[in-house]
Amino acid sequence: MSQYEHIQKAAYEANMELPKLGLVIFTFGNVSAADHTLGVFAIKPSGVPYEDLSPEKMVIVDFDGNTVEGTLRPSSDTKTHAVLYKNWPEVGGICHTHSTYGTAWAQSQRDIPIFGTTHADYNTFDIPCAPPMSDEYIQGNYEYQTGFQIMDAFTQKGLDYKEVEMVLVGNHAPFTWGKTAAKAVHNSAVLEAVAKMAYLTEQINPQAPKLKESLKRKHFERKHGPDSYYGQA
Amino acid sequence: MSQYEHIQKAAYEANMELPKLGLVIFTFGNVSAADHTLGVFAIKPSGVPYEDLSPEKMVIVDFDGNTVEGTLRPSSDTKTHAVLYKNWPEVGGICHTHSTYGTAWAQSQRDIPIFGTTHADYNTFDIPCAPPMSDEYIQGNYEYQTGFQIMDAFTQKGLDYKEVEMVLVGNHAPFTWGKTAAKAVHNSAVLEAVAKMAYLTEQINPQAPKLKESLKRKHFERKHGPDSYYGQA
Amino acid sequence: MSQYEHIQKAAYEANMELPKLGLVIFTFGNVSAADHTLGVFAIKPSGVPYEDLSPEKMVIVDFDGNTVEGTLRPSSDTKTHAVLYKNWPEVGGICHTHSTYGTAWAQSQRDIPIFGTTHADYNTFDIPCAPPMSDEYIQGNYEYQTGFQIMDAFTQKGLDYKEVEMVLVGNHAPFTWGKTAAKAVHNSAVLEAVAKMAYLTEQINPQAPKLKESLKRKHFERKHGPDSYYGQA
Amino acid sequence: MSQYEHIQKAAYEANMELPKLGLVIFTFGNVSAADHTLGVFAIKPSGVPYEDLSPEKMVIVDFDGNTVEGTLRPSSDTKTHAVLYKNWPEVGGICHTHSTYGTAWAQSQRDIPIFGTTHADYNTFDIPCAPPMSDEYIQGNYEYQTGFQIMDAFTQKGLDYKEVEMVLVGNHAPFTWGKTAAKAVHNSAVLEAVAKMAYLTEQINPQAPKLKESLKRKHFERKHGPDSYYGQA
Repeated sequence: MSQYEHIQKAAYEANMELPKLGLVIFTFGNVSAADHTLGVFAIKPSGVPYEDLSPEKMVIVDFDGNTVEGTLRPSSDTKTHAVLYKNWPEVGGICHTHSTYGTAWAQSQRDIPIFGTTHADYNTFDIPCAPPMSDEYIQGNYEYQTGFQIMDAFTQKGLDYKEVEMVLVGNHAPFTWGKTAAKAVHNSAVLEAVAKMAYLTEQINPQAPKLKESLKRKHFERKHGPDSYYGQA
Repeated sequence: MSQYEHIQKAAYEANMELPKLGLVIFTFGNVSAADHTLGVFAIKPSGVPYEDLSPEKMVIVDFDGNTVEGTLRPSSDTKTHAVLYKNWPEVGGICHTHSTYGTAWAQSQRDIPIFGTTHADYNTFDIPCAPPMSDEYIQGNYEYQTGFQIMDAFTQKGLDYKEVEMVLVGNHAPFTWGKTAAKAVHNSAVLEAVAKMAYLTEQINPQAPKLKESLKRKHFERKHGPDSYYGQA
Repeated sequence: MSQYEHIQKAAYEANMELPKLGLVIFTFGNVSAADHTLGVFAIKPSGVPYEDLSPEKMVIVDFDGNTVEGTLRPSSDTKTHAVLYKNWPEVGGICHTHSTYGTAWAQSQRDIPIFGTTHADYNTFDIPCAPPMSDEYIQGNYEYQTGFQIMDAFTQKGLDYKEVEMVLVGNHAPFTWGKTAAKAVHNSAVLEAVAKMAYLTEQINPQAPKLKESLKRKHFERKHGPDSYYGQA
Repeated sequence: MSQYEHIQKAAYEANMELPKLGLVIFTFGNVSAADHTLGVFAIKPSGVPYEDLSPEKMVIVDFDGNTVEGTLRPSSDTKTHAVLYKNWPEVGGICHTHSTYGTAWAQSQRDIPIFGTTHADYNTFDIPCAPPMSDEYIQGNYEYQTGFQIMDAFTQKGLDYKEVEMVLVGNHAPFTWGKTAAKAVHNSAVLEAVAKMAYLTEQINPQAPKLKESLKRKHFERKHGPDSYYGQA
């Protein structure tokens, strides 16, 4: 029995949620689950349809992107996952999809404005869109650089990856993360819902104001503050 | 056997309709069922996924928002429900969702214009959007004030909660109600359908006229007037 | 056994298609099936949910709108159906829904422009939108007048009900018909698909040209002309 | 046992995917599978609902459009398929649908701009829209000419059918192809997803820039280049 069975199971189950939640067709997405003590993560093999997956097919990769265990080639986005795990120690799961509305915002190269409490229950910032990569980076180690592109966007906007667990990569698509692979997938579904609502909001009222400061703070504290009262204790 | 079993069952069944009707993902919604004689209502516990609910998990709360029976924490929106039950004696069920099109209109801070008979079969007014709360109220008892915000909007617009069983809360999302929890959920699905049609109507014809007075009156009386002839006698 | 069993069965089966095709929620729609020899039609009872329907619950009504057999009250739109059957002898089935995109065009009070062959395979005219009813008519026999409103629109636009089997009623919603109740429902699904495509076409290209004459003629003849070669002989 | 059983099975299975993928209602689509050695293809019979299909009902047609085996009339689009197979020897399957977003772009008579990597993972060109046919051609052998219209558009735009496996026919709808019928259907689903994302991208940001050259090249090579690392070796 593999010592990595726990993260293979977590990654497998999280990947299988993607088609159920309507976030992917065919092989348009991948989820990974990390064990920071072992310094590795389990990730979907590349180009394998969801119906053919099983836990033991999840490939084990270290935080430099090297395959540690598994006979299949890991997802082509593996190096992006590796960079984020290596630099963001509290991330336990990462999810990447080409979900319809999230991808449309990424292609539009715009941050998703915070228009309401659906968004504010998760975080109180516009969902950032990292700009497209420089030509120099693209010709280099592309997926590796995508990880840095995401981190650079967080640094420039002064965001904390523990507060904002989602990003758009310009011209590409969303990445989300969380303490577990399941939470990363949850965040992808939330991002897609928020992206659709923000699109419709601007269509209905092009001058729609963003959520005011006092409401942002209230909703964040309701779920995450010291006196939070959302969910079970 | 709990004396509240009847409202727990009603609240449970109504909550379980929300994902079936496509009105919620995850825990984005809550329904309650009241017994005005006993002065209490049963409401969804906070943050519990729909698939884990059961009738006995519904929390019993009085009209001041105090938990009367149940070990789980009630929905974070409980005080909004309590205020409405306390002040609107003919409301037997309340439903709150973040359904996509209803929430987009709430974020747009616009009333939903009455464009057709689909809307007029339910009520003959624009569906009101209560303005975002003042900073003073937000810093106070937020969910409690949300109830007053809704009632204030009805007073200012001269609406009767027995005629118009739905409202948008600006920057937030819809609330609906009715004589029963099942009717409240029904109204949430109608609001979502009407919200989508109104959005499309304005996209297709930005100068689309609202329903004229004579048609509003006709449709309202057809369903609700003294000579109504819709449905079975 | 009722002598009307054949039209009750046809009406029942056609009504049950509506929720499967995504054209209605709750009781937002009704289909009828006529027997012109007997001078009656079978129609859905008013306000009864689809899951509670059965063939014998279909109400039998004559072409003046009088109930001939059945204990339930017929659909509130019954008189509209009656007028059309009385005046259009080759109509064997009528379908009325509040389907999302069709209703949005009706609320917009615009004809649906013919933009492509999907539309032209059914008819080669813009789908007509009958204007909202005059106040005088509304205060009279409303549903009866809706039938005349539809026929007037066909007369004014020089359309033949045997060539164009669908109409929008301004501020209201679509009606469709055909030789059978099943064909009427089929036409409602086609109208909804065409309505959605036309909406998107105008969003993508506000100057999109309508289908040119030669293509309209070709597609019509391919399905309906003397040398038609669509479908099985 | 028919010598054509292998292509009948491939065509049947590919046709049955269309309703599952949400690409067609009723009979709005057809897929064929070719055997270039035998010089024939198997195609859906015309106007037969998907639920009534079986492998042996697939009609066998040669590359001039003549029926070789089968008692049913082949799809009305058969000659378009025949022309493409005759002229494009590496095409093993062709799919035609009236999918919603793809058809809306075709009706808009615009190429689908390449806005992101979802598109670039398949090809690195705008998805071409062939202009509507000349009146002379329409009055001739219409479906035969549709095949030439598609090939002419590829010639004029300098595209290779082995690199770009999809096209829109102006005023009509999409056609896609590939080495197999299954791949042709896969490409139809991808085209529909890309068409929806491109529509939303322009709505969210009317000035959205197209994908830059360096990213186009990178994504193409990642999947198709000599050092490709997508999928399993």
